[in-house]
Amino acid sequence: MRREHVRDLLARVASGALNVDEALGRLAFEPAESLAFATIDHHRALRQGFPEVVFGEGKATDHLLEIATRIAERGEGLLVTRLAPDAASVLATRFPTIELNAVGRTAYLPPVEPIPAGRGNVLLVTAGTSDLPVAEEAAVTAAAFGNCVSQLVDVGVAGIHRLLARRDELIAASVIIVVAGMDGALPSVIGGLVGVPVIAVPTSVGYGASFHGLAALLTMLNSCAAGITVVNIDNGFGAAVAASRINHV
Amino acid sequence: MRREHVRDLLARVASGALNVDEALGRLAFEPAESLAFATIDHHRALRQGFPEVVFGEGKATDHLLEIATRIAERGEGLLVTRLAPDAASVLATRFPTIELNAVGRTAYLPPVEPIPAGRGNVLLVTAGTSDLPVAEEAAVTAAAFGNCVSQLVDVGVAGIHRLLARRDELIAASVIIVVAGMDGALPSVIGGLVGVPVIAVPTSVGYGASFHGLAALLTMLNSCAAGITVVNIDNGFGAAVAASRINHV
Amino acid sequence: MRREHVRDLLARVASGALNVDEALGRLAFEPAESLAFATIDHHRALRQGFPEVVFGEGKATDHLLEIATRIAERGEGLLVTRLAPDAASVLATRFPTIELNAVGRTAYLPPVEPIPAGRGNVLLVTAGTSDLPVAEEAAVTAAAFGNCVSQLVDVGVAGIHRLLARRDELIAASVIIVVAGMDGALPSVIGGLVGVPVIAVPTSVGYGASFHGLAALLTMLNSCAAGITVVNIDNGFGAAVAASRINHV
Amino acid sequence: MRREHVRDLLARVASGALNVDEALGRLAFEPAESLAFATIDHHRALRQGFPEVVFGEGKATDHLLEIATRIAERGEGLLVTRLAPDAASVLATRFPTIELNAVGRTAYLPPVEPIPAGRGNVLLVTAGTSDLPVAEEAAVTAAAFGNCVSQLVDVGVAGIHRLLARRDELIAASVIIVVAGMDGALPSVIGGLVGVPVIAVPTSVGYGASFHGLAALLTMLNSCAAGITVVNIDNGFGAAVAASRINHV
Amino acid sequence: MRREHVRDLLARVASGALNVDEALGRLAFEPAESLAFATIDHHRALRQGFPEVVFGEGKATDHLLEIATRIAERGEGLLVTRLAPDAASVLATRFPTIELNAVGRTAYLPPVEPIPAGRGNVLLVTAGTSDLPVAEEAAVTAAAFGNCVSQLVDVGVAGIHRLLARRDELIAASVIIVVAGMDGALPSVIGGLVGVPVIAVPTSVGYGASFHGLAALLTMLNSCAAGITVVNIDNGFGAAVAASRINHV
Amino acid sequence: MRREHVRDLLARVASGALNVDEALGRLAFEPAESLAFATIDHHRALRQGFPEVVFGEGKATDHLLEIATRIAERGEGLLVTRLAPDAASVLATRFPTIELNAVGRTAYLPPVEPIPAGRGNVLLVTAGTSDLPVAEEAAVTAAAFGNCVSQLVDVGVAGIHRLLARRDELIAASVIIVVAGMDGALPSVIGGLVGVPVIAVPTSVGYGASFHGLAALLTMLNSCAAGITVVNIDNGFGAAVAASRINHV
Amino acid sequence: MRREHVRDLLARVASGALNVDEALGRLAFEPAESLAFATIDHHRALRQGFPEVVFGEGKATDHLLEIATRIAERGEGLLVTRLAPDAASVLATRFPTIELNAVGRTAYLPPVEPIPAGRGNVLLVTAGTSDLPVAEEAAVTAAAFGNCVSQLVDVGVAGIHRLLARRDELIAASVIIVVAGMDGALPSVIGGLVGVPVIAVPTSVGYGASFHGLAALLTMLNSCAAGITVVNIDNGFGAAVAASRINHV
Amino acid sequence: MRREHVRDLLARVASGALNVDEALGRLAFEPAESLAFATIDHHRALRQGFPEVVFGEGKATDHLLEIATRIAERGEGLLVTRLAPDAASVLATRFPTIELNAVGRTAYLPPVEPIPAGRGNVLLVTAGTSDLPVAEEAAVTAAAFGNCVSQLVDVGVAGIHRLLARRDELIAASVIIVVAGMDGALPSVIGGLVGVPVIAVPTSVGYGASFHGLAALLTMLNSCAAGITVVNIDNGFGAAVAASRINHV
Repeated sequence: MRREHVRDLLARVASGALNVDEALGRLAFEPAESLAFATIDHHRALRQGFPEVVFGEGKATDHLLEIATRIAERGEGLLVTRLAPDAASVLATRFPTIELNAVGRTAYLPPVEPIPAGRGNVLLVTAGTSDLPVAEEAAVTAAAFGNCVSQLVDVGVAGIHRLLARRDELIAASVIIVVAGMDGALPSVIGGLVGVPVIAVPTSVGYGASFHGLAALLTMLNSCAAGITVVNIDNGFGAAVAASRINHV
Repeated sequence: MRREHVRDLLARVASGALNVDEALGRLAFEPAESLAFATIDHHRALRQGFPEVVFGEGKATDHLLEIATRIAERGEGLLVTRLAPDAASVLATRFPTIELNAVGRTAYLPPVEPIPAGRGNVLLVTAGTSDLPVAEEAAVTAAAFGNCVSQLVDVGVAGIHRLLARRDELIAASVIIVVAGMDGALPSVIGGLVGVPVIAVPTSVGYGASFHGLAALLTMLNSCAAGITVVNIDNGFGAAVAASRINHV
Repeated sequence: MRREHVRDLLARVASGALNVDEALGRLAFEPAESLAFATIDHHRALRQGFPEVVFGEGKATDHLLEIATRIAERGEGLLVTRLAPDAASVLATRFPTIELNAVGRTAYLPPVEPIPAGRGNVLLVTAGTSDLPVAEEAAVTAAAFGNCVSQLVDVGVAGIHRLLARRDELIAASVIIVVAGMDGALPSVIGGLVGVPVIAVPTSVGYGASFHGLAALLTMLNSCAAGITVVNIDNGFGAAVAASRINHV
Repeated sequence: MRREHVRDLLARVASGALNVDEALGRLAFEPAESLAFATIDHHRALRQGFPEVVFGEGKATDHLLEIATRIAERGEGLLVTRLAPDAASVLATRFPTIELNAVGRTAYLPPVEPIPAGRGNVLLVTAGTSDLPVAEEAAVTAAAFGNCVSQLVDVGVAGIHRLLARRDELIAASVIIVVAGMDGALPSVIGGLVGVPVIAVPTSVGYGASFHGLAALLTMLNSCAAGITVVNIDNGFGAAVAASRINHV
Repeated sequence: MRREHVRDLLARVASGALNVDEALGRLAFEPAESLAFATIDHHRALRQGFPEVVFGEGKATDHLLEIATRIAERGEGLLVTRLAPDAASVLATRFPTIELNAVGRTAYLPPVEPIPAGRGNVLLVTAGTSDLPVAEEAAVTAAAFGNCVSQLVDVGVAGIHRLLARRDELIAASVIIVVAGMDGALPSVIGGLVGVPVIAVPTSVGYGASFHGLAALLTMLNSCAAGITVVNIDNGFGAAVAASRINHV
Repeated sequence: MRREHVRDLLARVASGALNVDEALGRLAFEPAESLAFATIDHHRALRQGFPEVVFGEGKATDHLLEIATRIAERGEGLLVTRLAPDAASVLATRFPTIELNAVGRTAYLPPVEPIPAGRGNVLLVTAGTSDLPVAEEAAVTAAAFGNCVSQLVDVGVAGIHRLLARRDELIAASVIIVVAGMDGALPSVIGGLVGVPVIAVPTSVGYGASFHGLAALLTMLNSCAAGITVVNIDNGFGAAVAASRINHV
Repeated sequence: MRREHVRDLLARVASGALNVDEALGRLAFEPAESLAFATIDHHRALRQGFPEVVFGEGKATDHLLEIATRIAERGEGLLVTRLAPDAASVLATRFPTIELNAVGRTAYLPPVEPIPAGRGNVLLVTAGTSDLPVAEEAAVTAAAFGNCVSQLVDVGVAGIHRLLARRDELIAASVIIVVAGMDGALPSVIGGLVGVPVIAVPTSVGYGASFHGLAALLTMLNSCAAGITVVNIDNGFGAAVAASRINHV
Repeated sequence: MRREHVRDLLARVASGALNVDEALGRLAFEPAESLAFATIDHHRALRQGFPEVVFGEGKATDHLLEIATRIAERGEGLLVTRLAPDAASVLATRFPTIELNAVGRTAYLPPVEPIPAGRGNVLLVTAGTSDLPVAEEAAVTAAAFGNCVSQLVDVGVAGIHRLLARRDELIAASVIIVVAGMDGALPSVIGGLVGVPVIAVPTSVGYGASFHGLAALLTMLNSCAAGITVVNIDNGFGAAVAASRINHV
């Protein structure tokens, strides 16, 4: 498109329909259009079914409602993360078909045209039940980005047999997101069991020397299983987008 | 295979060839055999052309030589990382065809059977020239694991035009590994320019409040571009394995 | 004035209007007057249009009101930062013409004599909308200190084209204050685009390994763009004063 | 003994053999004798076969030799930890029967009377080969303190089947010391497999965000397996003494 | 039981009552039963009187009630830790015989069959009165796990005579749990007085540079008394389980 | 007294009024009395006018009231620090003559016998008005411990002339307590101006990279003025006791 | 230039000398040329007398020599920072007129055309003699960038009179760079004495809890004097560039 | 003196010997003389026998020799701390009567006039033999500053009876400096035994989670004994100066 836009502009210069100084001005003063990547990004988003994503934390409810309304009008779908309960109610009133996930603190309004079927699947593995909010945020995000999602819950390493019993599911996944707090040891074990990409999400679950997820984060960064990658503490959203990037290569 | 092994054992019980107590004993006392994953792991390695990898740091040269000899005998290839110069010389004497990379501190002995052509490519992007050792470790590893590798060097964000000029190369990659020290800002910019998986590697390049790479690590974990994943400081090897996991899904 | 004050005192000693011991006493017991810098500071403040600034955080509302009243009586202007909403209401009742900024948490009462027109301008650049409270504090402060202020919002590095499209505005500024949380990468990019002074303000926007702004602070201190300076986390006020010091050299 | 000593003293007062002021003086001025625990400690040491232990790090070789000679003369055995190679040579020259352990950096001179057979056994489990120096320090210490010691090496969680294959050995131990660097995840898995006491020793093996063992230490302190206890980074000696305390209850 | 279960299954295969594929399916699809350790763990729990333990923090009250009901139905006892007051009321209504400990924030429902008499005793030593909640959690847990428990309170090192006066009680214990905040110095003194296992629990009691228990944690990890082991900050539960592991060797 | 007590006990043994075993029992079972330092401490307290001090933070109001009542009955004075407002009201109702300090969060009930006049004075210097709560805690404590107290407020280093104008007061003090948050720079300046002992108290006043007082603490520990000593963050009480120790040498 | 270049290209399209597709290709494939800022940066550098700067740390001597030779050939001047002594010798042999500064570890080769006289001056203030290497790096850099430089050494706050005696020099500066290690308190005092921009440089001078300059860094970020800005630890180069940015506005 | 100086100046103005402008100039341009504290400091030093102190670390030997020579010429004594062995040799050659302390790394040249007998004594208590270098630095400094010094070594809390046996010495001191690494627990015990000032010096003795003395530093700052003050890690010099300030009040 960028190429076409510039080609068109140049053609109009060549044909005399646009003189040199006018063309120069357009190149200088409309950079957002002339530099192309914004547009390309936009088209890629449409192609891949990526909805617009709004980070709800710290936003005033009226601002959130206004942003959501503008996005929803485009019909391309809307995903809100880190959504407070009262703001969720307001969104639900305004958009009766919006899908709320109280545990994951998300709201999702599917696009008008159905999302193309995902080309891969994402397996979400959770060490403990307290890690579920982060896993749910990841699950909603991955699904909204056009991926098939399945889950394996409460299979932490202190009861390793629970995990080993589900090895078939681990091996069948195209990407695995492992969500764990406290000692954050689960990704190391899973990374040694499978050859597919493993994305580790440390959670702030724990107390004392967990330092709000720092312990799990460091564990994962130092994993003795090669090729584990890590996202920020409690960043279920980021892990899901990373998984979706992999599934859409 | 695990299924076949157990099916076989059960069939022998059904046919009377194995009595109940013997079968019980095998299930109880040969877990490594009956649980199979070691073998599966091994086969997967052969299938995917993953060579054995030896972490050279802190190993005595004679130990390293012995380990390397045992692996080399299997003919499946050998990769040594974090290799000290004197140990590299010893390896080169013993294995005349070994490929040394002084900057990346690696030694690589290709397998007897050529590695299957890679199914994807890995683009290595480096913020500054001081980040090259980590990038080289990643490049050698990714190639040894059967990936095509290309590089883009010294395109840090303080001269953003150098990066923007190479956008086509960024978009053409199937996975991008971004290596950066100091402020570690490069992955955020690249993550916003492309839709493919981006793996960020913080390096210990810097001084003062870089705290040996901690600053770059935190930057990357907090990237405002969604879906960036991160590995340990200076962990070029891990980033390459993660990229290879993605390329071999 | 200090010089005049002391000269006057000495002249009265020379003329016999004041004896030696009385003069000595005055020098000894009125140090604030006799020691030059307080007075000089005061005059400089008047010349440069610097209002008195009150840090509102943690102050009891009645204390705040009393301090504000004393300052307001002098007619030289009053700026209150980190102001809680209820204290803002009390101030608004007492000083009907006071200008409240709810987002920046400031209250500003202009001086009786209009502030001299600023000799330079300050461009405030914000990475995300969540950084606005810090930017607003900086904007109100810079204006109160006699600087022209303009803003560029939501131009974070994950959508680099948005920033590049505004390069003319960046280059036209005499000082740029860059406000960013999360990865704090924006100042590095801007510092490479312009030659004017760039003051980086990390914000506590983020979660997990942002550690309440520490990640952004470290990023900025390690900027690969030369000559970036940094202030404390969320310190919009300090950045504005630094910018004003530059504009009034 | 303390009771007997004081009873004796009181009896001599009662009999008139000691007058009140003399008795008072002894109670006041000989606390080391009258308070008894030094003596009790000493006797307990003899009873339990605990040799004297010297921390070799940072001690001048001549000081070390002098201390070692004084202890050796008592014939109760001598254990030196954190011993530099050159100091080891000097000790070996002076005490031809001393047992050096180059990997564990220890020197051990058994007591004249053989140590009583241990009442329990200590299983040392090591995640990787680089953790061996710490494990060796623990092994030598535990043996010197009268415990039976066995080892399980290189069974880190990234190849979990290696560990599971050795479950019988894990369950048979009376105390397990788990030595691991990098992600420090191994104790969590073992703690879930067995019911016996598990002592975790983080090692400084790793790089980057391992922060010289801090990552492994935090992992272990936050273990999701209940009842794991932890000692200082690289403190193989301390773990062995803790295990010995347990075996000698 | 596991052995019996598998033997039974194999016997049915041998007798033709179960065909090979059905048996295979059961082994494949009922992993929790077919994989030995879960079952073994379960039996060990019954033998040792370990009740099921629920970490109450962050669980919704209705979830907690449901989990508690399911566990209570099995009659093996129920222990809930980190219990909020309102959730405690709900549990008390549902289980009239449940034993609440408001200070330790625990609820305990003893098993139907009385716990076998403990084979050892646990002495809980507390540095200050503010450390009592952690000590109470440990006391309830240790008792529920079948240990005899006694306490020594407010014997911090700043008044060392209070501690020395109770030396007999220290020496008589089979395991000592030392609970201390602030400087965390108490375990070092006790570790030097006794030869039995000492488990140190840092608490978050303190302010300023105690950093929520970090200071006490570091003190304990660096104890100059050999053989002290440490658990996470405020982890009274973990210390009690560790003590119970020791007492049940 | 201890000497008299033991002498008396021994005399009764000598006279036959007490037999050996009874005496032994008393020494064994009344350690608080028989072990000198508790008693000596008590006497020293009486001599120096040190009241009993209760740390109010985290104590239930009824416990606090009970402890306070028991101490008050002895008539030696009572000092409560870190007192919540509601607990202060309860104390005020129970002890009508108790002296409350709302800013310093203290309650003080003077002893029945007037405290001996202090032998020295303590000068409290405060960098900013926000540091006053800590300074007030110190002031009340120092006065209760029998020291004369004077104050110098809001003389931070950013307006150095304010401090220099009060140099005579600085030099006249026997001990100076310097209370400062934010940059914590004031003790360095004062330590260079005077030769008397200077005790630095960092406060948690500040934001962002002050890390709740850590910045000020580190500044003071690294003071370029020789011989400054430091106490914990916000520890006005500790600084006052240290000053009192100095004044009572 | 960018405008001229694009205008020229467009004119050639308008005249038919270049057809549309060729023009399109040039815009697409020569971005470094077509995207103005690289060129503009280059011209600005020439105009402002900024020499090329090479960070010498970690560069091989032969690489350094090659880079230096290429830059020197352009005649625009060359500045090398963080230069090791042996590399300095090599440079001195190759460039006989290069100016070495052993304390500041710099080498400077002035441009062929003399640098335009500076429009402002930079005052470098040093707290202690150990801070001189950082100050010298700043001094050489500032001079090379076309600023007048003067120095004030060893005027730390522990001897505040030394600083106050030089107030005239402080007030006369257009920008002040304050270099301090240990407590880092000096910028706070100077920031309160003057109205000009103050750039604080923490140094790694100190020991123990200075944590290699972290203490000084935090002090400066929390300065109670408004409008102080800070650069990385030991970053004399960055401070000088920041000062030069201010002087060239 | 300041008063006399100004009085004299004023008197000369009153008598006409000095005109107003000249007097004004002197007050403005000779602050070091007119502000007096430098001189006062100097006189205080002479009166109290404080020699000049040179921090030897990081100083070139020739610089050190030059500084030492200038100070020695004044005959007031010279103290050098943190002295490297080779620099010590050079000083010993130049000043044959200088007193070297190899353990404490100090050199001391007494003043020509003997130091006045100390008015108090300083007791140095050391937890372990590895803490001796810090204790020796403190001992030499305290003696040079005119204090009587005695020592108590190797009385760490893990063998508490060793300390309790020396209680008389503790109580007899006028100031106690407690030097301890590892857990840093000793000052808490001593602070509870005595009423005199206690200055705690953390040392970098330890490993792993001692973090080069941070653990001991935090322990001491959080001491449960009231009124302990703390200096920087390994700062024996600072502790001695603080003790001397106390002894010279």
